[in-house]
Amino acid sequence: MTRMSRLSVLLYLACALSLPAVVAAQDADNTRESPRNVILIIGDGMDDHQITIARNYLKGAAGTLQLDAMPMRGAVQVLTIEDKVGGKPLYVADSANTASSIATGVVTSRGRISTTAGSDEPVPTIVELASAAGYRTGLVSTASVTDATPAAFASQINFRLCENPAVMHEVSYSDIPLGNCIDHLKANGGGGSIAEQLVESPLHVILGGGQKHFAPQAEGKSRSVLALAQDNGFATATSADQLQQADFNKKLLGLFAPSTLPVRMRGQNGREAESPEVSLLHQVHDYLGEVTLPEVMRCEPNPEFGNTPTLKAMTDTAIAHLSANNSRGFFLMVESASIDKASHQRRPCGSIGEVQQLEEALQSALDFSREQPNTLVIVTADHTQAAQLVPQESLYADFPIPIYTPGKIARIQTPEGSVMAVNYATNNFAMEEHTGANVPLFANEVGRDIIPPFIQQPQLFGIMTRHLGL
Amino acid sequence: MTRMSRLSVLLYLACALSLPAVVAAQDADNTRESPRNVILIIGDGMDDHQITIARNYLKGAAGTLQLDAMPMRGAVQVLTIEDKVGGKPLYVADSANTASSIATGVVTSRGRISTTAGSDEPVPTIVELASAAGYRTGLVSTASVTDATPAAFASQINFRLCENPAVMHEVSYSDIPLGNCIDHLKANGGGGSIAEQLVESPLHVILGGGQKHFAPQAEGKSRSVLALAQDNGFATATSADQLQQADFNKKLLGLFAPSTLPVRMRGQNGREAESPEVSLLHQVHDYLGEVTLPEVMRCEPNPEFGNTPTLKAMTDTAIAHLSANNSRGFFLMVESASIDKASHQRRPCGSIGEVQQLEEALQSALDFSREQPNTLVIVTADHTQAAQLVPQESLYADFPIPIYTPGKIARIQTPEGSVMAVNYATNNFAMEEHTGANVPLFANEVGRDIIPPFIQQPQLFGIMTRHLGL
Repeated sequence: MTRMSRLSVLLYLACALSLPAVVAAQDADNTRESPRNVILIIGDGMDDHQITIARNYLKGAAGTLQLDAMPMRGAVQVLTIEDKVGGKPLYVADSANTASSIATGVVTSRGRISTTAGSDEPVPTIVELASAAGYRTGLVSTASVTDATPAAFASQINFRLCENPAVMHEVSYSDIPLGNCIDHLKANGGGGSIAEQLVESPLHVILGGGQKHFAPQAEGKSRSVLALAQDNGFATATSADQLQQADFNKKLLGLFAPSTLPVRMRGQNGREAESPEVSLLHQVHDYLGEVTLPEVMRCEPNPEFGNTPTLKAMTDTAIAHLSANNSRGFFLMVESASIDKASHQRRPCGSIGEVQQLEEALQSALDFSREQPNTLVIVTADHTQAAQLVPQESLYADFPIPIYTPGKIARIQTPEGSVMAVNYATNNFAMEEHTGANVPLFANEVGRDIIPPFIQQPQLFGIMTRHLGL
Repeated sequence: MTRMSRLSVLLYLACALSLPAVVAAQDADNTRESPRNVILIIGDGMDDHQITIARNYLKGAAGTLQLDAMPMRGAVQVLTIEDKVGGKPLYVADSANTASSIATGVVTSRGRISTTAGSDEPVPTIVELASAAGYRTGLVSTASVTDATPAAFASQINFRLCENPAVMHEVSYSDIPLGNCIDHLKANGGGGSIAEQLVESPLHVILGGGQKHFAPQAEGKSRSVLALAQDNGFATATSADQLQQADFNKKLLGLFAPSTLPVRMRGQNGREAESPEVSLLHQVHDYLGEVTLPEVMRCEPNPEFGNTPTLKAMTDTAIAHLSANNSRGFFLMVESASIDKASHQRRPCGSIGEVQQLEEALQSALDFSREQPNTLVIVTADHTQAAQLVPQESLYADFPIPIYTPGKIARIQTPEGSVMAVNYATNNFAMEEHTGANVPLFANEVGRDIIPPFIQQPQLFGIMTRHLGL
């Protein structure tokens, strides 16, 4: 290489990394030897409303979240299709098809776990590919580890609710049949339920909720799925203490609640968003009578959270296990699941606490990325959600008539002394709907240099696999 | 300057501009002579739902808008306070206080036009500062040019609805008094109504709607505000033809409708979002009976649009007037106002057409920025809005009960053959509320190198004034 072309390369590197040329040259030497890692953090349903609601509460209207300080911020176009070959677009996703997009690069239909729409073919996931290439892999979630988001990274099945072997023939809720996974039974050549696939996967660390999905007897075996995990070399943990003390030399399956982990925060005395109450006179005419809005409430610690491991504690343990004596590197997916689940339940304080949990886990990821600079840290959401930050006082308050949401509303006293109103009004059902806007994307310096400001959700797969050289 | 320090400067420039050093050196010579321009495009209420709804309709679910192709994308934290000195944060803004933030760098209260919360002091705007420094300035809007967004760039007053001299003593709607601007009468040492301030401002080009605000007699004069504009050297235009033929050597005031310009698109036969209709049995119990959703509809051209100049036509004329024989440069604000206004009225097709108008105006701005490379092009929204993209088929459709929005919904047939559902449910009033999430930000290459991925809304003022060296 001539002197001139070396200078050009240095210039290129300096610019690409936004570093002075000399520093870039030093880094080039370091990074050749350092492990390549991907830490993907998914805030389930974490759209800009959820982020702003959490920021207002946790940091104040003019405050800054850890997310806001990320050097790269962009947007992701969410893609969903009907469940048939050549299906048309659907404009609102669920966590199954979106996680499948991220984990496999393939667009599919709602409810599917890394299988193709209509044709029901399994698609290789980043966990499989990374493991085959010698990387360690791990999944962390505040949901059941068998829930759609983690499931899509290490299993393939036609229906997200087939989480354990007991429900493969029929998933139902209140006697209403919702679907089945008969074609994916092992007896029929499939991989079995999500729990079975996880414990037979190459995953090194699995941490989250979902004990109940590991208790049933594995298909064709006389042992539970949990016992199968132990047979396959997993140490198991069910408490924060056991999580701390886990043996670095074994694979680790930590399950800390029967199903979803309890959320960290809740509304005062457990309150949710509530319907405004209108007077009798108002029922006679829209312009008459009065409306009584739900009382202003504080957020408070959720007493059910107790000694549940935090998302940060699980992330720290996962990173420690995945990186210990590992010169190759790892892929880790971390999900803060109940930003979404609390929003379905119209519990804004619940969502706020889970954004806070994500922020802490992100801090752990960023701290680690300073130790191992070839670590790509990405934060994104899978889809947008129902909560809307609306005016505490209507824009039309000068009009002397009752103005209020037709849905449910929570009015939250923020630590900085204002009142924040959060509205839920996508439907009349027990659970709110998802919504369909593009979602936010954040990355550390490593990501800034390789991720365009606007991407389609399946492109995340390619961005991550390229970083790992897969 | 030594050879070495020259190399350092080149390196710095190369990195700052993300260009090879040699190209940067060439550009340094060019840009010293080329005019410095700012084109700020505001999509009023253009949040990620509005963008995604428009993308789905105009380009398809997997399509790409001009916005999506911008090299820089970030987010803006919207700040609003109560109307008193030291007021607490409010979490939802209006277009008056947000435009004031962008135009002046100061956080203020809802309804205010570039005046301080509580203390009612006027704050210098970027139009004043740029004009004083020898730049030409212009405002283009599909609203009345006296509406909050354009107004905040070239006037200072306590209440956004004081758009003309006839309403300074009392603004009312259906006999309900909404406010006044007595302290800002010229007789009281103020600048008068917004229309009067505009025609007495240093603005070179003013294009949009709002003829009715220029017809009243100017305060203390026997002539209309429009006549005052002509006295002050403005040529006037009221049709697309006159816009095309306007004299480049005069200032230009173009007013193309009595108030807001008609929108380009509307729902089939003028339809808006509508309430689902429930059967009598459903009124007995939530789980019983049936719901009938509004029929699916197409979007269609709005017959009222007629020969209204497009936002692109106005933007092209403004750029031509501002840049002709101008070696110094210009500041131009372009607003697509009715993304917001149509959303207040629950008219998703209206909003879609106005995002399309913004896209076309953006294309003009980008084309011009290639001719004059020192042109900073920024696109942003002022606040988020009520429309939500919701599932056409509920996530819970397997449950045999009627599920529907408690608000109003439009089901739109998209050109790619799917149905997109848009929900409006912030209130029960004739007009929807704004919402409070952070808003998107886009910039061209010039902006990418100087705008962090997350900023507070008032920082936009500093970013633009620094580019102009103010």
